[in-house]
Amino acid sequence: MNKFQSIANAVDNYITTHTPNILREFTDYLSLPNHASSPEDTKRNAVFIKEMFEKRGVEIEISELPGARPFIYGEYNVPKAERTILLYAHYDGQPVNAGQWNSDPWNPIIRTTTIEKAGEIRPFPEHGEHIDPDWRIYARSASDDKAPFIAIAAALDALRENNINVTSNLKFIFEGEEEIGSPHLAEYLRKYRKKLKADVLAICDGPVHQSGKPQLYFGARGFACLDITVYGPNRPLHSGHYGNWAPNPSLLLVHLLASMKDPDGNVRIENFYDGAEGLSDDEKKIIDAYPDTGDDLKSEFGVAKPEGKNNSLIERLLLPSLNIHGLEGGPVGNLAQNVIPSSASASIDIRLVKGIEPGVMLDRVEDHIRKQGFHIVREEPGIKTRMKYPWLAKIVRHEGYSAVRTRMDLPGTNAIIEAAQRAAGEEVVLLPTMGASLPLYIFKDLLNIPIVGIPIANHDNNQHGPDENIRIGNLWYGIKLFASLLAQAK
Amino acid sequence: MNKFQSIANAVDNYITTHTPNILREFTDYLSLPNHASSPEDTKRNAVFIKEMFEKRGVEIEISELPGARPFIYGEYNVPKAERTILLYAHYDGQPVNAGQWNSDPWNPIIRTTTIEKAGEIRPFPEHGEHIDPDWRIYARSASDDKAPFIAIAAALDALRENNINVTSNLKFIFEGEEEIGSPHLAEYLRKYRKKLKADVLAICDGPVHQSGKPQLYFGARGFACLDITVYGPNRPLHSGHYGNWAPNPSLLLVHLLASMKDPDGNVRIENFYDGAEGLSDDEKKIIDAYPDTGDDLKSEFGVAKPEGKNNSLIERLLLPSLNIHGLEGGPVGNLAQNVIPSSASASIDIRLVKGIEPGVMLDRVEDHIRKQGFHIVREEPGIKTRMKYPWLAKIVRHEGYSAVRTRMDLPGTNAIIEAAQRAAGEEVVLLPTMGASLPLYIFKDLLNIPIVGIPIANHDNNQHGPDENIRIGNLWYGIKLFASLLAQAK
Repeated sequence: MNKFQSIANAVDNYITTHTPNILREFTDYLSLPNHASSPEDTKRNAVFIKEMFEKRGVEIEISELPGARPFIYGEYNVPKAERTILLYAHYDGQPVNAGQWNSDPWNPIIRTTTIEKAGEIRPFPEHGEHIDPDWRIYARSASDDKAPFIAIAAALDALRENNINVTSNLKFIFEGEEEIGSPHLAEYLRKYRKKLKADVLAICDGPVHQSGKPQLYFGARGFACLDITVYGPNRPLHSGHYGNWAPNPSLLLVHLLASMKDPDGNVRIENFYDGAEGLSDDEKKIIDAYPDTGDDLKSEFGVAKPEGKNNSLIERLLLPSLNIHGLEGGPVGNLAQNVIPSSASASIDIRLVKGIEPGVMLDRVEDHIRKQGFHIVREEPGIKTRMKYPWLAKIVRHEGYSAVRTRMDLPGTNAIIEAAQRAAGEEVVLLPTMGASLPLYIFKDLLNIPIVGIPIANHDNNQHGPDENIRIGNLWYGIKLFASLLAQAK
Repeated sequence: MNKFQSIANAVDNYITTHTPNILREFTDYLSLPNHASSPEDTKRNAVFIKEMFEKRGVEIEISELPGARPFIYGEYNVPKAERTILLYAHYDGQPVNAGQWNSDPWNPIIRTTTIEKAGEIRPFPEHGEHIDPDWRIYARSASDDKAPFIAIAAALDALRENNINVTSNLKFIFEGEEEIGSPHLAEYLRKYRKKLKADVLAICDGPVHQSGKPQLYFGARGFACLDITVYGPNRPLHSGHYGNWAPNPSLLLVHLLASMKDPDGNVRIENFYDGAEGLSDDEKKIIDAYPDTGDDLKSEFGVAKPEGKNNSLIERLLLPSLNIHGLEGGPVGNLAQNVIPSSASASIDIRLVKGIEPGVMLDRVEDHIRKQGFHIVREEPGIKTRMKYPWLAKIVRHEGYSAVRTRMDLPGTNAIIEAAQRAAGEEVVLLPTMGASLPLYIFKDLLNIPIVGIPIANHDNNQHGPDENIRIGNLWYGIKLFASLLAQAK
């Protein structure tokens, strides 16, 4: 048995012996409401975190910019450290609509599997009681993003109880405004810039692979979005008296949107895919080895035919995407009114890949809209503008941010890949970029160190929605992952 | 001065002298809330109408079917009547959203012109005070459809005070459920069928021509509608993690809708226009003489370019129409969520012309949807159906009713045309069919007599919306129209 195996066994034993304590601390933490709109709630979380980490010997400093939620900086230094790892997590959560949940989002419960699979509620285990890794804890932020906090704390405990040497210095940055768009993150990072020197930044957020395999990601797509409003008559008109005569803005809008992307998922906007930075040969090999979960996902989501022709999910995520996420042209069904509406709107999000900047991409979309015959305005058009241009589109641009992708073969990233593999006891899945967007550019611009995402949550965690949950086995993986990172002796 | 002219002058004088009384009775009537959802409110209206007409010597009978609002039947018989005219009007109104009104919808006020033209509020006139015909009364149902009631009552008073012979028998049917779709009209008509024998049915509802000229209509378009729901993943998916892979139902829906109608307004559904009954040569002449108000309407509604190529509004109304009145694929703007929605829906209304039945038309639309590659379902699809068909469309059909058009050259209709022209003092506009839909088929099927629409309200009356109003001059025209009809001696 090599040294790594003995560490892994020790951590496993620790988890088995201390399950009730770990889960009790976790449920105490999960019981604290944490939406960033409440200064009181976020403060209570910050105080909880401070005490939780100070108990483990981490030096904690809470900082508060005016109008911002607390930012928590922490340091854990060891003699003769081989490296310094900067860990990021956020303690704020998405808002909850309690009426849509099957249980109280602030009163964590255990189920034997998902609600969809009719999981039954079970009491939390007492000392010595068995807990199945497939069981789940349901509560807001159970996955996103309170799980890493408890996993780090338990990893520190496990190493200390077994007298295992910690060989990495740790620095922590814990944010309280991630779910509202990180409005003060850059300012906080600038404030702490000098202290944040490290070999690698590990982002403790996001889900593992859909197959359940551990996964690391080395980037995230960028983001841009735009709202389009197309105009008809200046007030809704009776569709009997004026139907066939007054132009219908919904009709103009569906033609415009249909021109942007074909039903097979190929964007038809000129130059849309141009400039995307290709993959290195190494990255291509990794992509080829990436597990294809297409059939499982199709069953899970009830999808007969995904977009794209024979492309796997991972290949599709390496391309920029265009998605109509909002569409409004009057109510349907029982609330429908027989009118020609006065306007119709769509919201479109664009996921960007490395090499295409948000402003450039939005310009391409606007050029396309003009080519379809629309005159673009930035404000509600008045009567003169309406009488001048048959087709008017008001565009509101949201420039978002660029994609970031770290090389996968740097010393800092390699250390993390190895630690994850040891924790998992198997090859981990390497993802050159998440499909989702994260403002990694803030870290990249200010810190200029490699960035690796080290998610622990199961992919079906209902993140952001009702009935958020974490699989117990994923929490255990998290503890092992952090223990492995901390005790990563050469 | 011929006899007709002397009658017209007498009625004019009556209006001038009795303006305050007429408007007082009207405002009392308008102060009664009248949505069909309230049995108490509609009952109060029915009692008011009974007293109003009994005072003028009309025999009134109120009938109530279980669960229905009161139906009012009235008779006014004169010796040696030359004809019998059956008059229809409805006393119920659209619901109100008082917060959207500029004044209390149940407290009628006078303005010197429309709110859009900054009309000022004026007190109701005292005896001898002048009132401008361009002034307006604002209240729910001022136009739709309480104005005809007061106009008929005032016409009877004017004739009696001037000892003018009434030469037509009148029968009245007053409905209390028109705005909720006339669910019991057919049953009430069947109940009264024997009593309803008449030479012509005059529908007292709708607006006059947009130019302000008096107008008669001889039909109305039919109606059909359908709700279409198109499916994506079985739950909303994060547009980052799955954007480019999960099919977006809004994208499929916009392609489907765009295939139905081109941006110029031509419906591309196979056979859509087939079977429409053409116009007779006489009707074509009338259409050619129909005043084209296109430019005025364009300015009024802020429309640079109407649908159709060089077609006037009237020509467009003689064709079936297809209108997307509802469109929903997730919220836009600040409420937008970055997801691939689970479904997207549209509501479409179709206005039918004579010769095309609603069921036939809906079949044509469904055939088109199938040809675009969609599998049609009638219920929410389960996982098996979702996995089997890449493109699914749930269709909910609302069959509506057929168009009705009366010939314009029958004895009964001619009498009404002449009366309207005398009342107007000018040629009236003859409209073969309204663009709007009315369930005239119920009358046609059960009564089998010519049907003529004799509207009195101004076209810009905000019918159905907030700030409904009637122009005073249009109310006066109504009184003259009914007086002329009643005293139509050969």
